[in-house]
Amino acid sequence: MLQDKNPSKTDIAKLGEFGLIKTLTEDIKIQNASTLKGIGDDAAVLRYSDLDTLASTDLLIEGIHFDLAYFPLKHLGYKAAVVNFSDIYAMNGMVTQLLVGLAVSNRFPLEAVQEIYEGIKVACRIYNVDLVGGDTTSSRSGLILSPTVLGTVAKDKAVYRSGAQPNDLIVVTGDLGAAYMGLLVLQRENETFKANPQHQPDLSPYTYVVERQLKPEARKDIPPLLKELDIQPTAMIDISDGLSSEILHITQQSDVGAQIYAEKIPIDPQTVLTAEEFNISELTAALNGGEDYELLMTIRQKDYEMIKYRKEFTIIGHITEDKGAYLITQDHQKIALKAQGWNALKD
Amino acid sequence: MLQDKNPSKTDIAKLGEFGLIKTLTEDIKIQNASTLKGIGDDAAVLRYSDLDTLASTDLLIEGIHFDLAYFPLKHLGYKAAVVNFSDIYAMNGMVTQLLVGLAVSNRFPLEAVQEIYEGIKVACRIYNVDLVGGDTTSSRSGLILSPTVLGTVAKDKAVYRSGAQPNDLIVVTGDLGAAYMGLLVLQRENETFKANPQHQPDLSPYTYVVERQLKPEARKDIPPLLKELDIQPTAMIDISDGLSSEILHITQQSDVGAQIYAEKIPIDPQTVLTAEEFNISELTAALNGGEDYELLMTIRQKDYEMIKYRKEFTIIGHITEDKGAYLITQDHQKIALKAQGWNALKD
Repeated sequence: MLQDKNPSKTDIAKLGEFGLIKTLTEDIKIQNASTLKGIGDDAAVLRYSDLDTLASTDLLIEGIHFDLAYFPLKHLGYKAAVVNFSDIYAMNGMVTQLLVGLAVSNRFPLEAVQEIYEGIKVACRIYNVDLVGGDTTSSRSGLILSPTVLGTVAKDKAVYRSGAQPNDLIVVTGDLGAAYMGLLVLQRENETFKANPQHQPDLSPYTYVVERQLKPEARKDIPPLLKELDIQPTAMIDISDGLSSEILHITQQSDVGAQIYAEKIPIDPQTVLTAEEFNISELTAALNGGEDYELLMTIRQKDYEMIKYRKEFTIIGHITEDKGAYLITQDHQKIALKAQGWNALKD
Repeated sequence: MLQDKNPSKTDIAKLGEFGLIKTLTEDIKIQNASTLKGIGDDAAVLRYSDLDTLASTDLLIEGIHFDLAYFPLKHLGYKAAVVNFSDIYAMNGMVTQLLVGLAVSNRFPLEAVQEIYEGIKVACRIYNVDLVGGDTTSSRSGLILSPTVLGTVAKDKAVYRSGAQPNDLIVVTGDLGAAYMGLLVLQRENETFKANPQHQPDLSPYTYVVERQLKPEARKDIPPLLKELDIQPTAMIDISDGLSSEILHITQQSDVGAQIYAEKIPIDPQTVLTAEEFNISELTAALNGGEDYELLMTIRQKDYEMIKYRKEFTIIGHITEDKGAYLITQDHQKIALKAQGWNALKD
């Protein structure tokens, strides 16, 4: 990845920390009225007026969360930003600012760090987010990214995981399982490449699933759409660890149960085909695969009319008074959902 | 450090990410009215009403920013929090919330992570800060801490690095150079211990300098004191990289120059004695040592009367129209200040 992208290499140590920050950030223009002061002081200064503020942070570590063998640096920067934005949309808010902690070892030249930043800056432009601060340092081994995202939501309109009520409808956006199948494809190609460096991968049958893995998008469109439809979800979460794990978060924090229906879970045809090729169930990919960054929400029955013809939403089940969360299969079996999602601490 | 502290060991992988977060955070109580929702959802929810918001983030990496051979885990957690708080005070604000990203390798048992969190929580209690979110994951090698801090400041009262004017007085709080001498003492003791594990270190002559290194405090008292004295500094920064580096930040960003006087720089007698023992100039420790987390500010001449008898402040020089920042020695030599502060990217 590093070798074939850019023949010119600049040693970061020669620039120093402040030189590096200047190089990376001098083209940044403020996009949000709430950003009074961005990069360049002890802290960013923000003015949220009459809105509530949302804050979330993440840590992305080479070898744990991504593998640079098949993850281009620009995509990595983009994804690191977008997956954090997703947390804000999952609260029913809009993202306004981003801070990025970045640690690199000496093996990364300036051009590599610039590529990561380029991905972050593209994400910020597309999502209308101001990059307002961060920290850049060295690491002994590997690349570490630590984004923190800030957002706003109208007063008392934040949607928590804890508000689901019996009989609420369970709704997801988009389709599920594709990002996980994309990961399996990339891992397979990487193994093949290691065995035979002459191998030219043909990813064309996997365009969609690979893009869902390498360049996921967060559902920026959903909070304004919910407002337009006059729907205040009772609970919401983004699907980062797989549908099962996220449903369990909502049922446990809301003290309710859930039933979802296997045949209702939206899965793209390419995900189905790729899963067949890998001999796994596409349902497994959707339930446990993770990294789809779609939104899972519960809404009141009265809101059904407003969403039933909207292509953004799929109703997959309902909340129950009985505790316990279940998948109802096509042959009417009732299987308890388990959080088998990817667990970074078990690696 | 890990071996002799706690004989019981609990494997983090057994707890899983969510179990670990619950164990670490279940005793946290909200202290600030601005914290509507803390840990446990996709994002924290905060309400700042009529105040401006401040945000800053840092990345602390084992082997680069700290050495666990002589840095107790609880102190590490405390310091990671406090050095971030310092960035908010340097903006003339008060800290309200903290988010913490934490990555540990398998060699850390639960008890070790709890110690780090205990230090963070103690800092939060003392500084009246709410721990509202974070991320906990594994790392392939070593410990990574990534705190993000949020704070508030009255509208338009944030103090930037860029506001210093010719003839403003240059003022520092506390004393400088001690944290660096503490680091040298700890490094020496660690080398001695490695050569002879029977060696019992006697740190009693170095209590102050070692404490300044292991348990620094941020100047929470200064923003309210400035308000009480009705002083709005023209520029302010915290001293993390050494006085020289920070003065250059202010002069460069304010487009002015500076003269400071060697004999005015406040240095504790223990710092002087320890520097003598290590055969270095105490001025070098103060100018280039860093990690003192005192505040450096510029104030208007008219404010002189308000601070001249306050023990918290020392006037060390003044801002000049001529660019260039100089140290005036006791024998009236004029030496250009250089940013020789510790640079994490050059390690």
